[in-house]
Amino acid sequence: MKHIQLPFKNPEQSDPLVRQPSPNDPLPSWRDGATKQAIIAFVESVTDSTSKDYVPVSERIATLDNDGTLWSEKPLYFQVLFAFDEVKRRASDHPDWKDRHGFKELLEGGIDAVKENDHEGIMAIVEATHTGISTDQFTANVRAWLATARHPGTHRPYTEMVFQPMLELLNYLRANDFQTYIVSGGEVTFMRAWSEDVYGIGPEQVIGTTFINRYHDNNGEPEIVRTVIMAHHNDGPGKPVGIESIIGRRPIMAIGNGDGDLEMLQWTAAGEGPRFMGVIHHTDAKREWAYDRKALIGKLDETLDEAIANNWTVVDMQRDWARIYPENSDK
Amino acid sequence: MKHIQLPFKNPEQSDPLVRQPSPNDPLPSWRDGATKQAIIAFVESVTDSTSKDYVPVSERIATLDNDGTLWSEKPLYFQVLFAFDEVKRRASDHPDWKDRHGFKELLEGGIDAVKENDHEGIMAIVEATHTGISTDQFTANVRAWLATARHPGTHRPYTEMVFQPMLELLNYLRANDFQTYIVSGGEVTFMRAWSEDVYGIGPEQVIGTTFINRYHDNNGEPEIVRTVIMAHHNDGPGKPVGIESIIGRRPIMAIGNGDGDLEMLQWTAAGEGPRFMGVIHHTDAKREWAYDRKALIGKLDETLDEAIANNWTVVDMQRDWARIYPENSDK
Repeated sequence: MKHIQLPFKNPEQSDPLVRQPSPNDPLPSWRDGATKQAIIAFVESVTDSTSKDYVPVSERIATLDNDGTLWSEKPLYFQVLFAFDEVKRRASDHPDWKDRHGFKELLEGGIDAVKENDHEGIMAIVEATHTGISTDQFTANVRAWLATARHPGTHRPYTEMVFQPMLELLNYLRANDFQTYIVSGGEVTFMRAWSEDVYGIGPEQVIGTTFINRYHDNNGEPEIVRTVIMAHHNDGPGKPVGIESIIGRRPIMAIGNGDGDLEMLQWTAAGEGPRFMGVIHHTDAKREWAYDRKALIGKLDETLDEAIANNWTVVDMQRDWARIYPENSDK
Repeated sequence: MKHIQLPFKNPEQSDPLVRQPSPNDPLPSWRDGATKQAIIAFVESVTDSTSKDYVPVSERIATLDNDGTLWSEKPLYFQVLFAFDEVKRRASDHPDWKDRHGFKELLEGGIDAVKENDHEGIMAIVEATHTGISTDQFTANVRAWLATARHPGTHRPYTEMVFQPMLELLNYLRANDFQTYIVSGGEVTFMRAWSEDVYGIGPEQVIGTTFINRYHDNNGEPEIVRTVIMAHHNDGPGKPVGIESIIGRRPIMAIGNGDGDLEMLQWTAAGEGPRFMGVIHHTDAKREWAYDRKALIGKLDETLDEAIANNWTVVDMQRDWARIYPENSDK
């Protein structure tokens, strides 16, 4: 799994590409203001053993959505763009694909020919490219793709479309003995293939949608094979269920960016003691994308109302983030 | 969850009841001999950064079975004894139980009236006592039971029927930056209710059999409700599947005691690099129980053959363990 070098690695895991946080400012890419103050005040209060809000280390659980929260999600979820590229790469081994709904449109017309609301076609493509192989093989496929694939709009490697302020937040939380979990609607093995290198989040702290796996002996070379049967859809009410299933503790901090994160935020908010609920609001059409209530992907409507009504922290990307991605190209 | 005091807590979590390991001997309840030497040699080799067998901290994953490996499992799995006690406690609220198979035998004749191979009756009792309530309520039920229940043979609290040598091993592994996971056929929330206090293993490192959970809003007081539908049976080939699902890394050390652990041990053995596979052999009828190839519960037959054929470490409880349980009563 480790033999393919990814284009971008988290500075904690590799040489720094970006400015390092200092003791004076653990979040240098966050602009001074109420949002940054709210984050730091929360972390300082739960780690201060003299505070009434002190939280023991074992209970410092933070759960963060991935698509749109830790990296971008336009024009389509990057996992879907991976699936599309895999169809093209593997099409010659699957002559039937050229006549199959979804595959046919993609192979003849490219990404733009697949409608983003064609759930049936997209799901068939995801299943065909994500299942029926071992987890080791699938992981190798994802890493090979990441090593060379480029985003159709920015032409960056996908692993360089992670949000620099969120990398700093993850590092800051871990420096304060938080466990940082990804809780995403994305498929878990897809994320695990790169989450440790890019976010510093190991596979045991990635919670996502899962397919049922089967153990297969294979003449003394056992392998785990991915079936096409979905085991858990980790979106909406599936997020608190996934959290309970994997962690078994309620988070004290949760951050998302869409209506699929609402129940995770509500589940976190309903716990006792200090809580931090955050919502990333994509407001920066120039440096990233601007969308919310009417978006097909990353729709933020009911969750935005709930955030405002309950005084959750809304991160305005344009206002609060001094930079979006690692490196300087977006400045 | 923390308000009920359990009868026994791991010395790392509470005042010591037992002798503490020293730097000179991290495993004082293990008798000197080949077994103890094999454990220490393995741990020292994978943590020695100058060794060819060195393993980075993030990959130091140990997976241990629970029933029969970390605590006793006779006359029946303790989780089943909990279910039986719950039937008796709650019978007055369930008048239909007195005519229902399994329940009827238990309520009229006690534990001895339920045949240990009556899977249908036992499973119905487990389902009735383990599902249809929230995880918080179920956890409270388990902890209330542990606080007062006593084993029918030893009259000890169940949490004092954990194996002292294995508590020392868990602490020794964690002192060497291993992550120690339970990988058990038992139900996960039952074990999580006490694993942190007793073993020092938090809920996020307990892998077990699961029922499907549902998120339920309950008028702004959201809860996770346990349905009667089994999601994953974590036994036999289910163990490597559970490991892949929750951890996403292959263990470098695995210990079990029965044929239900075979695939976990094989999956561990088939990885690259240094490996430790251990099998607990119950050989001590005087201090605990003696059973192996013909046992209905804790059958150790094919796994024992594989252990011998592959030079895995077989722990002979009578020979290798200076004591079985915490405190002095078994000496």
